[in-house]
Amino acid sequence: MSAADVRPVVDPARLGKRIAELAAIGGNGRAVTRLGLSVEEQAARDLVGGWLGALGASVRRDAAGNLIARFGGDGPAVLAGSHLDSVLDGGRFDGALGVLCAVEAAESLRAAGARFRRPVEIVAWADEEGARFGLGLYGSGAAFGRLPAGAAERRDALGVSIAEALRALGERGEPEAARLPAGAAAAYLELHIEQGPRLERAGVALGVVSDIVGIFHARVTVEGRADHAGTTAMDARRDALAGAAAMLLAVEALARSREGVVATVGELAVRPGAKNVVPGAATFSLDVRAGDAAALEATIREIRAAVRRVGDERGLRSTVDVLSSVPVTPLDQALRDLFMRAAAAEGVAAPVLVSGAGHDAMNAQLAGVPAAMLFVRSTGGSHTPREHCDTADAALGAAVLARALGELAC
Amino acid sequence: MSAADVRPVVDPARLGKRIAELAAIGGNGRAVTRLGLSVEEQAARDLVGGWLGALGASVRRDAAGNLIARFGGDGPAVLAGSHLDSVLDGGRFDGALGVLCAVEAAESLRAAGARFRRPVEIVAWADEEGARFGLGLYGSGAAFGRLPAGAAERRDALGVSIAEALRALGERGEPEAARLPAGAAAAYLELHIEQGPRLERAGVALGVVSDIVGIFHARVTVEGRADHAGTTAMDARRDALAGAAAMLLAVEALARSREGVVATVGELAVRPGAKNVVPGAATFSLDVRAGDAAALEATIREIRAAVRRVGDERGLRSTVDVLSSVPVTPLDQALRDLFMRAAAAEGVAAPVLVSGAGHDAMNAQLAGVPAAMLFVRSTGGSHTPREHCDTADAALGAAVLARALGELAC
Repeated sequence: MSAADVRPVVDPARLGKRIAELAAIGGNGRAVTRLGLSVEEQAARDLVGGWLGALGASVRRDAAGNLIARFGGDGPAVLAGSHLDSVLDGGRFDGALGVLCAVEAAESLRAAGARFRRPVEIVAWADEEGARFGLGLYGSGAAFGRLPAGAAERRDALGVSIAEALRALGERGEPEAARLPAGAAAAYLELHIEQGPRLERAGVALGVVSDIVGIFHARVTVEGRADHAGTTAMDARRDALAGAAAMLLAVEALARSREGVVATVGELAVRPGAKNVVPGAATFSLDVRAGDAAALEATIREIRAAVRRVGDERGLRSTVDVLSSVPVTPLDQALRDLFMRAAAAEGVAAPVLVSGAGHDAMNAQLAGVPAAMLFVRSTGGSHTPREHCDTADAALGAAVLARALGELAC
Repeated sequence: MSAADVRPVVDPARLGKRIAELAAIGGNGRAVTRLGLSVEEQAARDLVGGWLGALGASVRRDAAGNLIARFGGDGPAVLAGSHLDSVLDGGRFDGALGVLCAVEAAESLRAAGARFRRPVEIVAWADEEGARFGLGLYGSGAAFGRLPAGAAERRDALGVSIAEALRALGERGEPEAARLPAGAAAAYLELHIEQGPRLERAGVALGVVSDIVGIFHARVTVEGRADHAGTTAMDARRDALAGAAAMLLAVEALARSREGVVATVGELAVRPGAKNVVPGAATFSLDVRAGDAAALEATIREIRAAVRRVGDERGLRSTVDVLSSVPVTPLDQALRDLFMRAAAAEGVAAPVLVSGAGHDAMNAQLAGVPAAMLFVRSTGGSHTPREHCDTADAALGAAVLARALGELAC
């Protein structure tokens, strides 16, 4: 049977049931908390692995904690999946939907009598969010040889390292050992909720990702002088928090001034942090993203200048420590075209979108494994219990993913 | 022997030695940490109480943890003192100097052969700073019947209540029982470092306080919507932290626009507080002070309007919860005149100052006990290890305090 003969039929009811079943793990009826390498994430792997095993896949967990379920024999595999971890008080769709739709795609292909010419691996990368150890895209980073040095020693808020968390799962604490041999992966397909309003506004269920934004992460430290709030005249102050506030508004104004750029200050801490003490120091996080490399660079340059200028005006010392700087990642053109064709075959004229969030697909693409992403319309943002994706849209996504997998592997 | 015959001679070396000895309690060679109702504060009371006992005072600790050392018999007493607690990583002079100078004043009066016509009580009020339980002026509040309701149940960061801390000291956990009977206190004199730059700039060692500023404390809560930092366009955000930053700069500008007004945002917290999440909520503290009641009221009104305006502009909900609002407290004119005369007798033309900080003297004055304060020149602000007062200036302050005590009690 050739790919053209395969007519996979996805089952929305089955998919919806699995979404609910998975959401119960780490869920409290409202939010879902399944941190990376936690017992909840492991329970999610067990549940999904069980479904895939029942479909005839050979299911394993690699040295980094990734779930890999293989259909077929030797040779380079076509990978499809996403992640099963969530942020603290997150939702049921971010990551999970990509894994469940990959399961649904595999099941519908099997039900349609497809045979895999090339091996297919359904994957669930561990700890994509980085909510626990501060290291996003961890599992795919391990698999694609893109972990930063010393990753295994990153620790969570309780002092547990990634290595220790892996050992608690029964692994050896060596995530680097999960690296896929060269040539083991032929392609990587990832379905994900959009997490943004564009598909909803356009009234379309699916979109195809052209590029993943470049992401610049830094920590800005502002140092002034702590003083008594009652006895220090306004003109004698070097208030680090007031300076940070001025910097923060400059960051917002600069991002607003450029199309396709977003900048966020999500963390801010004040020292000494007492109501009757003028702040002596403040630190804040900086997250700048753009789909256009030049716009990203220009915005970062202007933010640095604004931080310096505010510091000079207010007699404050400031430093910008770059934590990470990921370039804009264009995804594979041939696989994008494949998703477009598959969507069209399901009756969807999928728009081309830039992804504002980082995704595991970045690690594949940057490691030389052709990757593509399919976005499914969602509402309520993401990283929150409000995130939502209609099962009908999800099923449509699973059908497109099944078609694409069929083209590549059957 | 009448007051006019008494010639108290303070001993700067003895005073300097006691400053150093007291600073060792809770001190680390640099900063001093003696939180209210802690073992360190108790050790400080024991040290000072020992000195006063050796001078013949009858030394006790009251139900709130205040140290009271009485010279003389029955009848309304003249009180002099300050506090022995400090903030976290504070200095050796704020509070402590007022107690030590009162000890020095009593000792110099005794050495000069003074007899107390009226009883004199040297006092060290417990937990003036409020750094531990968030309740400033606690000990004097208990003594002068001005504790807020439920004060005993205020808890520190470890969950220990004031009542429990008192019981750990051997008291009954009922700070209200420390309330002085009506008529027990005839007057209250307090020496304190200035904590500000005015005496230093004027080149004068001492100043007399006319008024203690009114202090308005509030907590501002700003609620927006948490969103994904990568997928939420700038114009679709309701960023609570950006709104708080705009409010904070408005607070600063409003305080700068009025002479004699200071406003401080010393605490700020962000939720959820992740670098890749647009802040959904922010709360910050507000501390507004002025020596002029009308200026204070106008500034508070304008800050409230600015908070509302920023919230409306940005689609954020905001609330201002008033935590406390202490009016401007004019101190006793006759006692102020007494301090002026005593300073003049020591050769100092003391300027009249408004105190930008709250002090225990407020509780006495507001409870109907005439109170006055003498400020001693200091540098480096306060609530920091940098705070400094020359021993020569402190000794001059002790001499003026001794003269004033002699006038009132001998």
